[in-house]
Amino acid sequence: MPTNLPSGRDLPRFAGVSTFFRFPRWEDVPDEHRPLDWALYGVPYDGGTTYRPGARFGPRAIREQSQYLKPYHLELDVNIAERLSMADAGDAPVRPYSAAENHGAVAGWAENLPGAGHTRLFAIGGDHSLAASNIRATWERLGRPAGGLPVLHLDAHLDTVDEVWGERHGHASPFIRAIEGGWIDPARMLSIGIRGPLNTPADLAFGREHGIAMVTMADLDAGRAFEAIDVWRSAVGETPVYVTIDIDCIDPAFAPGTGTPMCGGMTSREVMNLLRGLRGIRIAGADLVEVLPDRDPADVTALLAAHLVMEVLALDAVGRIG
Amino acid sequence: MPTNLPSGRDLPRFAGVSTFFRFPRWEDVPDEHRPLDWALYGVPYDGGTTYRPGARFGPRAIREQSQYLKPYHLELDVNIAERLSMADAGDAPVRPYSAAENHGAVAGWAENLPGAGHTRLFAIGGDHSLAASNIRATWERLGRPAGGLPVLHLDAHLDTVDEVWGERHGHASPFIRAIEGGWIDPARMLSIGIRGPLNTPADLAFGREHGIAMVTMADLDAGRAFEAIDVWRSAVGETPVYVTIDIDCIDPAFAPGTGTPMCGGMTSREVMNLLRGLRGIRIAGADLVEVLPDRDPADVTALLAAHLVMEVLALDAVGRIG
Amino acid sequence: MPTNLPSGRDLPRFAGVSTFFRFPRWEDVPDEHRPLDWALYGVPYDGGTTYRPGARFGPRAIREQSQYLKPYHLELDVNIAERLSMADAGDAPVRPYSAAENHGAVAGWAENLPGAGHTRLFAIGGDHSLAASNIRATWERLGRPAGGLPVLHLDAHLDTVDEVWGERHGHASPFIRAIEGGWIDPARMLSIGIRGPLNTPADLAFGREHGIAMVTMADLDAGRAFEAIDVWRSAVGETPVYVTIDIDCIDPAFAPGTGTPMCGGMTSREVMNLLRGLRGIRIAGADLVEVLPDRDPADVTALLAAHLVMEVLALDAVGRIG
Amino acid sequence: MPTNLPSGRDLPRFAGVSTFFRFPRWEDVPDEHRPLDWALYGVPYDGGTTYRPGARFGPRAIREQSQYLKPYHLELDVNIAERLSMADAGDAPVRPYSAAENHGAVAGWAENLPGAGHTRLFAIGGDHSLAASNIRATWERLGRPAGGLPVLHLDAHLDTVDEVWGERHGHASPFIRAIEGGWIDPARMLSIGIRGPLNTPADLAFGREHGIAMVTMADLDAGRAFEAIDVWRSAVGETPVYVTIDIDCIDPAFAPGTGTPMCGGMTSREVMNLLRGLRGIRIAGADLVEVLPDRDPADVTALLAAHLVMEVLALDAVGRIG
Amino acid sequence: MPTNLPSGRDLPRFAGVSTFFRFPRWEDVPDEHRPLDWALYGVPYDGGTTYRPGARFGPRAIREQSQYLKPYHLELDVNIAERLSMADAGDAPVRPYSAAENHGAVAGWAENLPGAGHTRLFAIGGDHSLAASNIRATWERLGRPAGGLPVLHLDAHLDTVDEVWGERHGHASPFIRAIEGGWIDPARMLSIGIRGPLNTPADLAFGREHGIAMVTMADLDAGRAFEAIDVWRSAVGETPVYVTIDIDCIDPAFAPGTGTPMCGGMTSREVMNLLRGLRGIRIAGADLVEVLPDRDPADVTALLAAHLVMEVLALDAVGRIG
Amino acid sequence: MPTNLPSGRDLPRFAGVSTFFRFPRWEDVPDEHRPLDWALYGVPYDGGTTYRPGARFGPRAIREQSQYLKPYHLELDVNIAERLSMADAGDAPVRPYSAAENHGAVAGWAENLPGAGHTRLFAIGGDHSLAASNIRATWERLGRPAGGLPVLHLDAHLDTVDEVWGERHGHASPFIRAIEGGWIDPARMLSIGIRGPLNTPADLAFGREHGIAMVTMADLDAGRAFEAIDVWRSAVGETPVYVTIDIDCIDPAFAPGTGTPMCGGMTSREVMNLLRGLRGIRIAGADLVEVLPDRDPADVTALLAAHLVMEVLALDAVGRIG
Repeated sequence: MPTNLPSGRDLPRFAGVSTFFRFPRWEDVPDEHRPLDWALYGVPYDGGTTYRPGARFGPRAIREQSQYLKPYHLELDVNIAERLSMADAGDAPVRPYSAAENHGAVAGWAENLPGAGHTRLFAIGGDHSLAASNIRATWERLGRPAGGLPVLHLDAHLDTVDEVWGERHGHASPFIRAIEGGWIDPARMLSIGIRGPLNTPADLAFGREHGIAMVTMADLDAGRAFEAIDVWRSAVGETPVYVTIDIDCIDPAFAPGTGTPMCGGMTSREVMNLLRGLRGIRIAGADLVEVLPDRDPADVTALLAAHLVMEVLALDAVGRIG
Repeated sequence: MPTNLPSGRDLPRFAGVSTFFRFPRWEDVPDEHRPLDWALYGVPYDGGTTYRPGARFGPRAIREQSQYLKPYHLELDVNIAERLSMADAGDAPVRPYSAAENHGAVAGWAENLPGAGHTRLFAIGGDHSLAASNIRATWERLGRPAGGLPVLHLDAHLDTVDEVWGERHGHASPFIRAIEGGWIDPARMLSIGIRGPLNTPADLAFGREHGIAMVTMADLDAGRAFEAIDVWRSAVGETPVYVTIDIDCIDPAFAPGTGTPMCGGMTSREVMNLLRGLRGIRIAGADLVEVLPDRDPADVTALLAAHLVMEVLALDAVGRIG
Repeated sequence: MPTNLPSGRDLPRFAGVSTFFRFPRWEDVPDEHRPLDWALYGVPYDGGTTYRPGARFGPRAIREQSQYLKPYHLELDVNIAERLSMADAGDAPVRPYSAAENHGAVAGWAENLPGAGHTRLFAIGGDHSLAASNIRATWERLGRPAGGLPVLHLDAHLDTVDEVWGERHGHASPFIRAIEGGWIDPARMLSIGIRGPLNTPADLAFGREHGIAMVTMADLDAGRAFEAIDVWRSAVGETPVYVTIDIDCIDPAFAPGTGTPMCGGMTSREVMNLLRGLRGIRIAGADLVEVLPDRDPADVTALLAAHLVMEVLALDAVGRIG
Repeated sequence: MPTNLPSGRDLPRFAGVSTFFRFPRWEDVPDEHRPLDWALYGVPYDGGTTYRPGARFGPRAIREQSQYLKPYHLELDVNIAERLSMADAGDAPVRPYSAAENHGAVAGWAENLPGAGHTRLFAIGGDHSLAASNIRATWERLGRPAGGLPVLHLDAHLDTVDEVWGERHGHASPFIRAIEGGWIDPARMLSIGIRGPLNTPADLAFGREHGIAMVTMADLDAGRAFEAIDVWRSAVGETPVYVTIDIDCIDPAFAPGTGTPMCGGMTSREVMNLLRGLRGIRIAGADLVEVLPDRDPADVTALLAAHLVMEVLALDAVGRIG
Repeated sequence: MPTNLPSGRDLPRFAGVSTFFRFPRWEDVPDEHRPLDWALYGVPYDGGTTYRPGARFGPRAIREQSQYLKPYHLELDVNIAERLSMADAGDAPVRPYSAAENHGAVAGWAENLPGAGHTRLFAIGGDHSLAASNIRATWERLGRPAGGLPVLHLDAHLDTVDEVWGERHGHASPFIRAIEGGWIDPARMLSIGIRGPLNTPADLAFGREHGIAMVTMADLDAGRAFEAIDVWRSAVGETPVYVTIDIDCIDPAFAPGTGTPMCGGMTSREVMNLLRGLRGIRIAGADLVEVLPDRDPADVTALLAAHLVMEVLALDAVGRIG
Repeated sequence: MPTNLPSGRDLPRFAGVSTFFRFPRWEDVPDEHRPLDWALYGVPYDGGTTYRPGARFGPRAIREQSQYLKPYHLELDVNIAERLSMADAGDAPVRPYSAAENHGAVAGWAENLPGAGHTRLFAIGGDHSLAASNIRATWERLGRPAGGLPVLHLDAHLDTVDEVWGERHGHASPFIRAIEGGWIDPARMLSIGIRGPLNTPADLAFGREHGIAMVTMADLDAGRAFEAIDVWRSAVGETPVYVTIDIDCIDPAFAPGTGTPMCGGMTSREVMNLLRGLRGIRIAGADLVEVLPDRDPADVTALLAAHLVMEVLALDAVGRIG
């Protein structure tokens, strides 16, 4: 059942209360349209930040910038609103003062959104700690698949640090928690964009030990990304994958509005092309994180984030064609 | 029937889809709560601008900044959500390319919002041309009161220019149109904050000829505002007045985000105190206009606009006590 | 007759009243220097905007940033001021409130600038609706060439929408108007940079039906641009072409200051190299549009726009050598 | 022993590693200069924030802006570096993820800075939760004076909320904790600048019950501040008072860079004059909090914060004369 | 002969090449309109700066913001373009690398502008070192009046420092140079707005020794400004005075865009009212300095500077009536 | 002897007094750790600027942004703090008002830093005129090697202009001075990134005459950079080279915060890869210049500058392995 979007002819894109992409609010979707394909929700939480906070305002900024995008995806030739039914489920009930509690609160809420087994979860952040919550909820809603979900991970950092300042649920730790929980399968995890001096040798060693396929920027510049992607796709096959995009996978020139920016990152075009190249992939759930509006002159980061959410949805939509 | 607001304890003020002051959307108000006291709506229109455009994004910015304000008004000791029932009626169906058409479209839509005779209209802009529309709708909904509405007008400019570049419905003209239409009573119109080199002698002459009480900044500095207000209140008596606030009544230090800023304006405190001093006044309708987010570093103008909308609502609320 | 430019040694580049590239004002050019090769003029108009307005301040910003550029073009090894005579003809007499009237007023004024047949028009915007005006004037000044002008079009969008909100002369419509008027030849129109979710299937269908050669970013990434350019150059031959550059052809990282930014665009280097690769082309007229200074932190967009204007002028200048 | 400051003649104010006011680092002070009069230290912590985070970068920004201020205070005619010995003690060992732990860590560290009984503590934030820590350390270092310290409190909010989202050591709670601990004397606490819709009736009731003298902006506008100050000074007498300044006591026009800005606040001049009017007061310790650099265009808030720190130091210095 | 200004009806205020207030360029004034009353010129020089440079871009920013102001001054009820003939004389031939040479070059050029004895000089900066140049030129053009010119000086600093880093013509020194040269009369110099920690006791002592009447912000707050102004006006009588306005006389909230901002300054309204209160004064020449666009979010400082230039011109214009 | 860095676990990266990369201050290094490998120092000087000043604040901004980077360099697999001993030597004693004096003062001070022959100099600017000073000091400390130092020069401009406005030590002239002094060997100088309209034919002719290998952006796009680098490396051999990086070698999208930005520059990734490709090179000294914080929204330029300083240090560190 396609999503009913207001036309820009009737409601200009600078008008109206802002929901993600002008999708209907979750509570406004009539029963006959359910279950939906996707629930998009915000996680206005940045209590897991290790450097610059403020990503709690990310969902609001992305809602606003996403008003501007129409549903037709030119390059994949698909109209996401015609192929997918989607709604804005509002924001998760964050617990601002405790990363551990927040993890549980967000995961529990998301797990219990109606439509488990059909309606997938797209979490928009907010710091990367939310990935652990959304992955856990996704895994639960899929019936706890053995071995955990394959993961496509775009990021400057591996985010597998065990703890920082005594906290094990911060934004440096979602994937170590997800591996521990069995929610993801590190041997089918592909991390692209790793670079720069916030990573440590221990981070890389952890990745190697657990079989994470890491594509650093040096690998990417050397043309080694395609091979890694092919290997990963073969390993994944038809299994739905979880897609997690930290906006800092992209260079600060394109995405200054983030809390741990690293120079020398991917361009937005590289990321878009990378995603489009995955045509045919099945998607289990997704998140886009670490947009920090207070560092985002001219809102280019939030706009890019909206584009990337649409890329993931279009990738899903195009997988349903033919 | 008081307005049901989510608590910041349950939904932090940085979370959730943004409606004005977190009021319920118009369509979500149950019938037993109707008719509401106020419908707040946006007018994302700036096609009447003579200098710098961009106020079409004003409603969106004010929605966002208003999330932050709780309903209790300390100085007037009143909780607006307990005294008044209010909703966010969304944005009017603007016609971006024609000021005349837009005037009609906005006025007609607002006139027909349910609850005429009870539910008052608070239009949030958008450029000042919307005042003509909201005033007309207010006047119609009150049964076309003979003589027109008294007006409290806070602005750097009189906005009674007949036409600019051939257009008679631009943002310099709302009050000449409203006088022509009989929707307002210029002899009971009080304009405070007039100043600076965008005004012409012809503007002032028009005001004097029509009996508008003008309080320039020089008058205000000389202490002549209080007397003018007293005279006006006496003339107004119990008649509900229309309140129209152009954010440029305030100095650019406090409100840089506007399209025709004039230095030497009121402070935000002066405007707040002025409004609070009108305790007991009855309000027929209101607007707040000319917030231009692209010129608003740190969002202070939109935040101030939200404060001022709350001042008007609190003034109304406190009039209902005892 | 070369253009007389003040040296930075005498008048530092941060000094003086700002005309485009420090060219003389049109009215200051002595008769013996006429007819000039180029008249650059501003079109401070954004009334045709469908999303974010403010490009009316584009000409002013580009005038200011262009102060900084010297006339020697390193890569093409040509000094534009030695090869071309140019002046700043000021701003066209815009009609801020009516796109149709503005179209006529700008086109009529530009058509009647002295030097028709020799002096070419470079319009600097302002929104893309001005392209229809400048193309019409160029076509008229060339004696209404049968079949219309070939066009090189750099843009994220095709801008061939018939009408928006009832307006047929907005910034989404210049090329449908130009095709209707016979001012351009769609079969010799090359549009490069098309991308993203503001385009619709209908836009693309229109382009295909009219024979417009479209190079999307996907085409460009796939290396298909060069072939398209070669085909177009063959079709164009020695016919002077009209060059129209919407700054949003470039990615928001390089050009944030524009009203309808689309992520995933060309880099400034790609556009520069693309233009330099056209060495030998003849140019009939040109425009550069959609610079929005209020969204342009650090003025990088206006600076880039000045660079691109210079690229087009240098391309013309180098065509005159040998 | 006066503080040894580099002259701007030798080290321009835009040069050098930035310590507070170019005071020597704590570890560089020779023993013969000890004990110092003041230790200034940063608390880069914003984990107690209820709305917009980022004040963890406040100490860094204030260090930088303070480079610019010379030690002579014109209005009080005193050179703070000649009258007082001071050093920058660096930043407290914050615990970013737990407000309760952070409270203890900061308080414990500050309590144990050498010079207890002589060297007073000036904490620079960071969010207002640090006030509880610095007050506790000050009280301990003074030998736990019975009845607690008198307090001068400049703020838009009372900050006596018991808990928010389960946290009792957040930035809304420092004074309720300090009252509970017996570290301050609410009956000799004067809160100036209270205003706006973040306060609740319960906040005010708490203040009244505990005898806090509250001067709202309405009181201040009505001229009631002077009387309140006189009463408080009489009650305080020669007892050293703790001074706590939340930068949001000042209007957002002057101090936009803060996390919970409230319109209608004091001007910077009012606060300066208020402080200067307290000539003769004895000071036990101080803090200045809630500077948020990411919302501070042109750094005016951090510069103002530096000015205000100097006002407090000058007030102390002038108390030592004659 | 009044100044011929384009109407905003014909040339919108966002259009056209920017000269100061849209006055004609000096070279465009026909001979029959000469001599003019005022030559406004820019001094794009900041080589005399002691802290933050960038004021070389001040003239350009003020030209742009001044486009927006109409010639009618509401409060003084005078149209400056009807009473005064004025032109934009462009920018002085600055010498960016040597303050001493620059002083001579600017002063010499300004002295030789045609119309000496009639045409007065309004220099727009640029850093305050230009005041020495413009004062010297003014004094020369008036025939070297014995005793020097009386001065009205609005500033946070006295600017009478003998040298800084070996330079005697920097922006801290214009008035010591002017006193030495006999160009101004310190006994008839009134400095208003002095404040803050960039002043030293030596600065104040110098002022007192030379008879400069200093009104600090403390004096102003204590109501002592009016008396000082009266005394000064009595001393000045009918002698034309030189007016020099450093934009940092105003608080950073209103004028953040300046190189040595000091908190606690005048409001723009105070300065406007102060100037308007001098009705009847005769003006020999003027400058407005220290606007630094790179620190001026939303251009409020440059806009205020344009307002203040207009205040001085209106003060002159109104002196010519009746 | 490795450099002792505080861990982010003990001192979060948003805490503490900012020295370059959190290296110890020069004066805090114990004797047994000396001589150090590198002294990093700031040159807060922009008096040699020809266009936009403000780079005097560059060292401060880079100190702040460098806090964030850890010492492990992922791509070169080296921890710079383990391989190199380094300290922050503070800022050089600049002479703000005279480029010639400043050149001498900075060069003399740097030459005399202890450790000549072992401790290399990394100057961080500040405008490019400092390169002449740091090169001279480096050459002196190496015992005046005959023929001068080989140079790797990344820049948009050649900076070999003899004089500008009478000044021979400005930021356009460091390399002509260094060639004259015999401090560098132009025949072993490689300049990469040359582009755009600030260069003149005379600049290029000078470069060719002196044997400077110039790689323009056109060369780079044509793949000619690798060959030029190979030739240069062969010529250099084991001789330590001086590395000078003008941040404007990089495109304004990545590095807007600079005084003479040129569009069409390198990406940050290209520069990083270029440097990493020089593995094995020996480094005699280095500078990184022209960071202008007032034009640097979101601090991306200063962050990039910190990254690039680390690239050079890592290149040196990796040369010491094995």
